[in-house]
Amino acid sequence: MSERAIGVFDSGVGGLTVLKEIRRLLPGEEIIYLGDTARVPYGTKSPATVTRYALEAAGFLDGIGVKALVVACNTASSFAVETLTQRYAIPVIGVIEPGARRAAALTRSRRVGVIGTEGTIKSGAYSRAIQALDPHISVYPAACPLFVPLAEEGWAEHPVARLTAEEYLEPLRQAQIDALVLGCTHYPLLKKTLAAVLGAGVELVDSAEETALQVAGILRTADLLRRSPAGPPRYFVTDVPTRFERVGGAFLGAPLEGGRQVEID
Amino acid sequence: MSERAIGVFDSGVGGLTVLKEIRRLLPGEEIIYLGDTARVPYGTKSPATVTRYALEAAGFLDGIGVKALVVACNTASSFAVETLTQRYAIPVIGVIEPGARRAAALTRSRRVGVIGTEGTIKSGAYSRAIQALDPHISVYPAACPLFVPLAEEGWAEHPVARLTAEEYLEPLRQAQIDALVLGCTHYPLLKKTLAAVLGAGVELVDSAEETALQVAGILRTADLLRRSPAGPPRYFVTDVPTRFERVGGAFLGAPLEGGRQVEID
Repeated sequence: MSERAIGVFDSGVGGLTVLKEIRRLLPGEEIIYLGDTARVPYGTKSPATVTRYALEAAGFLDGIGVKALVVACNTASSFAVETLTQRYAIPVIGVIEPGARRAAALTRSRRVGVIGTEGTIKSGAYSRAIQALDPHISVYPAACPLFVPLAEEGWAEHPVARLTAEEYLEPLRQAQIDALVLGCTHYPLLKKTLAAVLGAGVELVDSAEETALQVAGILRTADLLRRSPAGPPRYFVTDVPTRFERVGGAFLGAPLEGGRQVEID
Repeated sequence: MSERAIGVFDSGVGGLTVLKEIRRLLPGEEIIYLGDTARVPYGTKSPATVTRYALEAAGFLDGIGVKALVVACNTASSFAVETLTQRYAIPVIGVIEPGARRAAALTRSRRVGVIGTEGTIKSGAYSRAIQALDPHISVYPAACPLFVPLAEEGWAEHPVARLTAEEYLEPLRQAQIDALVLGCTHYPLLKKTLAAVLGAGVELVDSAEETALQVAGILRTADLLRRSPAGPPRYFVTDVPTRFERVGGAFLGAPLEGGRQVEID
């Protein structure tokens, strides 16, 4: 079982920020990544539709045979982690719980901001997870639908991103948060812009890093870490891989090739 | 046959700008609209995937029984109108041809700009259609991926939209175009911003208006105009209708309700 790969899925390229952190922490592990690029994005879609897509993605990875399932998409994590946990015997790790735990540990003012897609914010998943850890923390959520297309356009540090961030984050600035959860796997690309708008007093919580830590901890505890060296990640996508490979490089921080198109629905 | 509805489909809400123009020109007609909101957008997806989705959408409308099929999505029109025309005996009307004809008629400098999604621009469909009408026209295409999310966010006249338009349109300004095809059904919402950036010397060609004119012309010629009065449009969507109804109102210019979720894949 320990020689099996870690399965990671996302609606598209965003989850590559999570894959990158898992590789950094666990360079000896094999990773199989699935991006549902034919149906991306999930952030504007309903809980029922996103859950259906997540079940299909998990079914594909489980069919290959993986030892853990990482839901590297905040919207899918918000809506579908419980369903997936009930369905599969292997560990299912979403990105909400790790990000929430880190934010709760970091905040001193007990005023935490959360930014994400429309779906993630509406679900209230981060607010519930943070307040389950500490009911005295006030959570200030803000949906930021333009951040994903800005990151995919390569404009993460463009004046347009700056102006957009100023508008989206104004209520969080006024609320005097001291920690901000980047509740979407695209958002680590916007770190510089977000930090410039919020100033040095606000810690940015990158769910990707926290999730990778949790994956490492779970595999170690369950004695599921690999013993023999593994090859590079394998990438599967549901649309042709051209755009995934082009845009994905920026998320991975390295050239990306070898994506293979599959049908999962 | 003439008492049947006109079928209109789009990846989501954008095609409502076309529906609105058809209703204005042909208020007595019944319209059935299908928005593929579970898989929106089409603009970043491959020709093969968009063609598959378009065939499923057309199959659904044909199953209900419509007298004409309007492909109210520039990306789907770019990739799939030929395939649909071969498959169905009823008239299939895309948005490319009408927009191209209008631009070719309007330009005096023979320098025409075309803006659209990544898919529409890459397809070269507008350039081919315009140059088939007049090979002496130079076409300047520009992909504008952020315009769709800006329109859906309700920021069509926001300073962020202005700054984005200035950047996207700069090459077209330098090319001294005198007509600009709005090659995406979301773009009519951005007319004010686009006009402010381009100035009075550039005519904006709204594919929605031109397409409605072509639909009216085809139905009239084929003696397919309805004789008895029709009810209001019927709306079908592939995800739950909540967001479609909320965002769609801005595209329709009137409140939208009564969307019904269906499966088409």
